[in-house]
Amino acid sequence: MTDVVALVRQYAVDAKAASRVLAAASTAQKNQALLAMADLLEQAQADILTANAKDIEAAEQNGLDAAMVDRLRLTEKSVAQMAEGVRQVAALADPVGEMDEFKTLPNGLQLGKMRAPLGVVGMIYESRPNVTIDAAVLCLKSGNACLLRGGSESFYSNQAIAKVIYQALAQSGLPEACVRLFETKDRAAVGVMLGLSDLIDVIIPRGGKGLVKRVTEEARMPVIKHLDGVCHVFINHDADLDMAQSIALNAKTSRYGTCNTMETLLVHQNIAQDVLPRLQDAYQAKGVQLRGCERTRSVLKDIVAATEEDWFTEYLAPVLSIRVVDDLDAAMAHINHYGSHHTDSIVTNSYADMQRFLREVDSASVMVNASTRFADGFEYGLGAEIGISTDKIHVRGPVGLHGLTNQKWIVLGSGQIRI
Amino acid sequence: MTDVVALVRQYAVDAKAASRVLAAASTAQKNQALLAMADLLEQAQADILTANAKDIEAAEQNGLDAAMVDRLRLTEKSVAQMAEGVRQVAALADPVGEMDEFKTLPNGLQLGKMRAPLGVVGMIYESRPNVTIDAAVLCLKSGNACLLRGGSESFYSNQAIAKVIYQALAQSGLPEACVRLFETKDRAAVGVMLGLSDLIDVIIPRGGKGLVKRVTEEARMPVIKHLDGVCHVFINHDADLDMAQSIALNAKTSRYGTCNTMETLLVHQNIAQDVLPRLQDAYQAKGVQLRGCERTRSVLKDIVAATEEDWFTEYLAPVLSIRVVDDLDAAMAHINHYGSHHTDSIVTNSYADMQRFLREVDSASVMVNASTRFADGFEYGLGAEIGISTDKIHVRGPVGLHGLTNQKWIVLGSGQIRI
Repeated sequence: MTDVVALVRQYAVDAKAASRVLAAASTAQKNQALLAMADLLEQAQADILTANAKDIEAAEQNGLDAAMVDRLRLTEKSVAQMAEGVRQVAALADPVGEMDEFKTLPNGLQLGKMRAPLGVVGMIYESRPNVTIDAAVLCLKSGNACLLRGGSESFYSNQAIAKVIYQALAQSGLPEACVRLFETKDRAAVGVMLGLSDLIDVIIPRGGKGLVKRVTEEARMPVIKHLDGVCHVFINHDADLDMAQSIALNAKTSRYGTCNTMETLLVHQNIAQDVLPRLQDAYQAKGVQLRGCERTRSVLKDIVAATEEDWFTEYLAPVLSIRVVDDLDAAMAHINHYGSHHTDSIVTNSYADMQRFLREVDSASVMVNASTRFADGFEYGLGAEIGISTDKIHVRGPVGLHGLTNQKWIVLGSGQIRI
Repeated sequence: MTDVVALVRQYAVDAKAASRVLAAASTAQKNQALLAMADLLEQAQADILTANAKDIEAAEQNGLDAAMVDRLRLTEKSVAQMAEGVRQVAALADPVGEMDEFKTLPNGLQLGKMRAPLGVVGMIYESRPNVTIDAAVLCLKSGNACLLRGGSESFYSNQAIAKVIYQALAQSGLPEACVRLFETKDRAAVGVMLGLSDLIDVIIPRGGKGLVKRVTEEARMPVIKHLDGVCHVFINHDADLDMAQSIALNAKTSRYGTCNTMETLLVHQNIAQDVLPRLQDAYQAKGVQLRGCERTRSVLKDIVAATEEDWFTEYLAPVLSIRVVDDLDAAMAHINHYGSHHTDSIVTNSYADMQRFLREVDSASVMVNASTRFADGFEYGLGAEIGISTDKIHVRGPVGLHGLTNQKWIVLGSGQIRI
């Protein structure tokens, strides 16, 4: 135990020191490291796939379910995509040093804000090895050192990727400690990490609910977290029915396992008779099981009843709960009460209702006449995302480079003193 | 104990419901409540001073030190200032609903951000009763419901001020639960509050280190906190000596007990001989005790030696530690290591050094040729401040209306689905 404490603390001390160097690094130097990383990833493809095969073999021996093994698996194509993703981040504008909101105060002081890195970012994640490279490149570009604690199931894959990262850092003259993947499987390491509030500025957990819950409870520093994605589409009384059907179908069925997938459909009572039957046909064709409130079931008589628990549930599966609501107010009350403040969309032609929905729905992404599936860092043009925040402070929704920075105040004077 | 749990939970449930109403309230309605509050404060002046006299009497009986009793005391003038402060917040622009950063994506989606309230803000504070009105008005204007847990030493003063707030809310048709001052002295109430992460969106502690430490450790929701104010002025080798003396004197002596007061002065070795003797004369005239590093003491032979602990210390008193440093790098290393990331200033005429100082000093406010004493919500034009954040995420430095809001993503479509 003492060894783990000392080891993790040393990682964090080194990361803090490296973060000072990285905060001052030029955009050119950071991009040089990223482009080297992309090239080295391509060159190390065989090594990475060999390491990944070891993880896959162990996962199958340990009886991991097929979906998890699938998330773990890397291919020639996915390594090529990693390299491409790194080049995309290199091409993004550097947020560090961006200045904004300057004004001159009556005493002549020039007051503004400058964007700065957070410092040391701790990532705790499960399963997918591509998080290792995504987190490293986003932190590097945004001037943050990072400590990466990946899942034990992707241990060898992560090590192979980290080797490439260290090489690229060395080639570009940046400290290797800018990125540090934990080299221990010791489960105590996470607990040690979560206590180092003097060295780690923010923790980002990525994984199942159990992981996020543990991190939130134990972390002694701020956490940027992603909880559930219980997303809604509300079809208003005046919606274009073809558009409503297209969006409702896309939001549910384009992918079932993503957090921006719709889990509950809300339908205005005035159009329930018109829209529900055609939607049922469309969902049945896709094999989606429907669960309805009483009023839904008075139209769609053969579907099962939704329980109170259904309204809170992120199915991540071909299951959809449907509720008929009296009006916009009832729809928004449902979303704010049962939803997870992730992404919610209204289909409407009413300007007034659209305005109220945008203002009053308390979610990270609020949409009008669009599929919830667009809530994503790539779709939003962030280049990549380190996660999707369902928190209320610091950053909401997809977290890209800006979410990994803060703004400090800058004051330029000419000798002013306070009287 | 069960009673306190139920009571505090009920407060929070009511606040959550009220926060939905307040998030949708118009600017006009919020300002009406604020202006009514200002008028009612003036009308209730006698009641407030009577209540305050009870607190003062109890404080003196309980042997509180003179400084604390002084912070507690209200006067006709301070009540008038409260009312004036409320009118100033009413005059500020409403941050809620502000839209920004719109762009059109290739698929025609219009993507932007809208500023929104955080929801329910929990304030836990000590001593000064004016925090009750400051917190209430800043939360109200920024669309947040708030739960106020004041110190037991200002119990009656806070109740008298809260009465005015409730009246103003009722007059303007806003739910009284928008602001709720705890009506219990039960110390268990704070612990209950800190556990209600499902209802309270953020906690802001204001008070001594013990309070902030307890809140940070126990809170199960995000905290916006203010730790130490160990602020520095660095006099560079090329500084204008008159300007340097004026700033160094003002930063230390204009007030001793404020968090933006300088606690350590850093002096470039090349000008230590020139600047230290004249500064010593100026500080001695003000009765400031100096503590120096070895090199400082080789110039100022009669001052005491600073210990390692001094560099970390927020004196809040007429005491100053002085260190002679080799160069800009050494100054910045000292600030980033020993400082509290609050406010730091460089006095220089070098463009390159100024640029590096702004970029590399990791503090909420970074200044050039200005006194650290300007780091303040009023001075920055925020109208008022609910605190000064030394955190790295969400908001740094003085926290005004914007710091009490977040930005959600807004997506305006015309039927787009994700392929």
